[in-house]
Amino acid sequence: MPVFLDTTQSDFETSFITLLNAKREDSPDVDAVVAGIIQDVRDRGDRAVLDLTAKFDRLTLTADGLAFSREEVDAEIAKVSPADRAALELAAERIRAYHARQMPDDAMWTDPDGATLGWRWTPVGAAGLYVPGGLASYPSSVLMNAIPAKVAGVPRLCITVPTPDGVINPLVLLAARISGVDEIYRIGGAQAIAALAYGTETIPAVDKITGPGNAFVAAAKRRVFGKVGIDMIAGPSEILVIADGDNDPDWIALDLLSQAEHDESAQSILITTDAAFGNNVAQAVEKRLETLERRAIARASWRDFGAVIIVRDLEEAAQLSDRIAPEHLELCVADPDALSAKISHAGAIFLGQWTPEAIGDYVGGPNHVLPTARSARFSSGLSVLDFVKRTTLARMTPEALRAIGPAAERLATSESLEAHGLSVTARLQKLNDPGQ
Amino acid sequence: MPVFLDTTQSDFETSFITLLNAKREDSPDVDAVVAGIIQDVRDRGDRAVLDLTAKFDRLTLTADGLAFSREEVDAEIAKVSPADRAALELAAERIRAYHARQMPDDAMWTDPDGATLGWRWTPVGAAGLYVPGGLASYPSSVLMNAIPAKVAGVPRLCITVPTPDGVINPLVLLAARISGVDEIYRIGGAQAIAALAYGTETIPAVDKITGPGNAFVAAAKRRVFGKVGIDMIAGPSEILVIADGDNDPDWIALDLLSQAEHDESAQSILITTDAAFGNNVAQAVEKRLETLERRAIARASWRDFGAVIIVRDLEEAAQLSDRIAPEHLELCVADPDALSAKISHAGAIFLGQWTPEAIGDYVGGPNHVLPTARSARFSSGLSVLDFVKRTTLARMTPEALRAIGPAAERLATSESLEAHGLSVTARLQKLNDPGQ
Repeated sequence: MPVFLDTTQSDFETSFITLLNAKREDSPDVDAVVAGIIQDVRDRGDRAVLDLTAKFDRLTLTADGLAFSREEVDAEIAKVSPADRAALELAAERIRAYHARQMPDDAMWTDPDGATLGWRWTPVGAAGLYVPGGLASYPSSVLMNAIPAKVAGVPRLCITVPTPDGVINPLVLLAARISGVDEIYRIGGAQAIAALAYGTETIPAVDKITGPGNAFVAAAKRRVFGKVGIDMIAGPSEILVIADGDNDPDWIALDLLSQAEHDESAQSILITTDAAFGNNVAQAVEKRLETLERRAIARASWRDFGAVIIVRDLEEAAQLSDRIAPEHLELCVADPDALSAKISHAGAIFLGQWTPEAIGDYVGGPNHVLPTARSARFSSGLSVLDFVKRTTLARMTPEALRAIGPAAERLATSESLEAHGLSVTARLQKLNDPGQ
Repeated sequence: MPVFLDTTQSDFETSFITLLNAKREDSPDVDAVVAGIIQDVRDRGDRAVLDLTAKFDRLTLTADGLAFSREEVDAEIAKVSPADRAALELAAERIRAYHARQMPDDAMWTDPDGATLGWRWTPVGAAGLYVPGGLASYPSSVLMNAIPAKVAGVPRLCITVPTPDGVINPLVLLAARISGVDEIYRIGGAQAIAALAYGTETIPAVDKITGPGNAFVAAAKRRVFGKVGIDMIAGPSEILVIADGDNDPDWIALDLLSQAEHDESAQSILITTDAAFGNNVAQAVEKRLETLERRAIARASWRDFGAVIIVRDLEEAAQLSDRIAPEHLELCVADPDALSAKISHAGAIFLGQWTPEAIGDYVGGPNHVLPTARSARFSSGLSVLDFVKRTTLARMTPEALRAIGPAAERLATSESLEAHGLSVTARLQKLNDPGQ
């Protein structure tokens, strides 16, 4: 059974803080192993990648075979059913439409001093997306990572996906094809991250790496950060549902379970103003757990990290929600917009009872790569912005320099940076004495 | 003497790659020390911070004295000359005006399927800015970090600045006051980063930490990343000047020296279409090095990492520039806008000979915290975006769910995530059989 809390109880604050601080992730210390793998790939390039793939994925390849050929992709994609293909295409179209609106604008203006200022956005030159292999090889994640990159205009986009024993999910390849991915490499683990960051004879280095992965992949991304850009290091999934009593308990139970089934470390929390409803949801969860395919995982997650919190009112619910800063937040209340306006920290908000979180995982349009472990306090989900960067622009006229240059000289002097000041002074002297 | 390269020479590519890969930073491995300091602050809070400040800054404080009082700040600020104050205020006003334009827009729309989608930006709840002590305690950096945070609407903004032997730069406190900083702590090093990330009895934890620092500070920021957000890990400063022959060699020499004087590891590069001009600039650098206050630093930087590259034309210059991906790029050519349009990767571009880079360090308006070490390939300078985060929003109507729900069910099934699918199925059943 999950923990039951009630804000009217005297020990609530202590119990809530325990819930907030629950350590949900076992992070095995793989850093030393990963450091060795990265160095090996830097030293030996393709040869290291091939050896490590033989070792970890039981797959013997040659450098020529690192990338899927167009014909290999065609053959795999042909296995996909028309219904699956149509669903993937609908999802891709909706994700593309949403992300197209995120492309930021360039700007350029001239201020009263005559200085022309602005900025310009440009895509990264090359991006690499890590796609896990095996059970966690989700085609939806390929769409969610690849489409924002292509919307951003990234000219070269590649994927690495391990294929243990040579097994690949055809839907992953179809998702890559639909998204416009340019290259697909059948490699995984820290060796894939190292190859993307440093390049090998066969795999040119990229500038940015995104996508989820296991502890080895996460440690490798952390290590190559700085050499290349990375997205966030994602933790186990989370959902917080705020619901009043006017909901179907089974719907809410399924929403909670749709995170719990991901991972034993996932966390599902219900906050409700109605204690009886809270109990009904807990019972509905138990009933669904009897038959759910992934019941072993979902039961462990719900038992160890699940919670039902009874609050006095929705105001209190909003305050607790901001302290949790959930990855996914469902607002199943009469006026979800009003409640949403009270929330500051959440990765994604799902408004109203007709918006189950699973819609957002697949076809809603917004990205499903979202900040976990309370990081919605300071970070955002994946977006087009992750694949562009901004160059600031400034142009002074002689008049503008005359107007603001002296302040720069003064500040340079106060910071004891003489050459900074002189670079302005020399120009101002010319302005004041053109014949000089 | 710096290295002289010429793209027409047969060994150019090899020499250029050597220049690109020059390791400019000695990163002492302080990670173990830093891990110990962070753990100490987590275990002992204020007490650890006070002990470490006594040890490293030779300053004995009590918990009450960790923060500067309003009166202490007033007293220090009173020491600032009117001219320095006016320069700082002009800089602050221009930086504020520039960054105010960066605030991103919220969005909300309803798509043809009846789904309402959008996003909303909110500020982080609290931000902490690290300000180095001693010589590198730059008031301009306080403005550049604090003003974007306040423009973003961050409600609580604090600064940590070490005061070795109790010495503080009054201009730093004035810059903090002008920027609207709420709290100023006289602590530094890894202990300051740990206090900001984890909080102590006296110093509440923040959500985001920005600002430059030494190797200990950088290692601490890397370690607390995830618990809180951080900005980039900045390396030594860099400038690339692309100039044709129609420039004053002394101006260009001073622009190159204004980076070289920062740090022995700084890098200044001139790319020019005019070999004679390149020589003239190198001579002008030597002449200025005779008298420059910081000549020992500037000379070492110019000797070890400086370069003059002769190119055939500006097209080639733009291509080399993108491979360097410079932090600062000056375009001292007849048509800087045309050349700028050919550049994809640069932190900041300074257009034309009347725009020395130093203007951007102080009073131009754009931020001077910019990506170094070729990271302009994938990252941007500090901005308002560093202090806000985006929550995505989605609201389905029953009709919208009917339109796109089946695709979500199909994809959930293909990923073996049964509860995901059922959370949609249960709702669609209700829609199809309302009496159920």
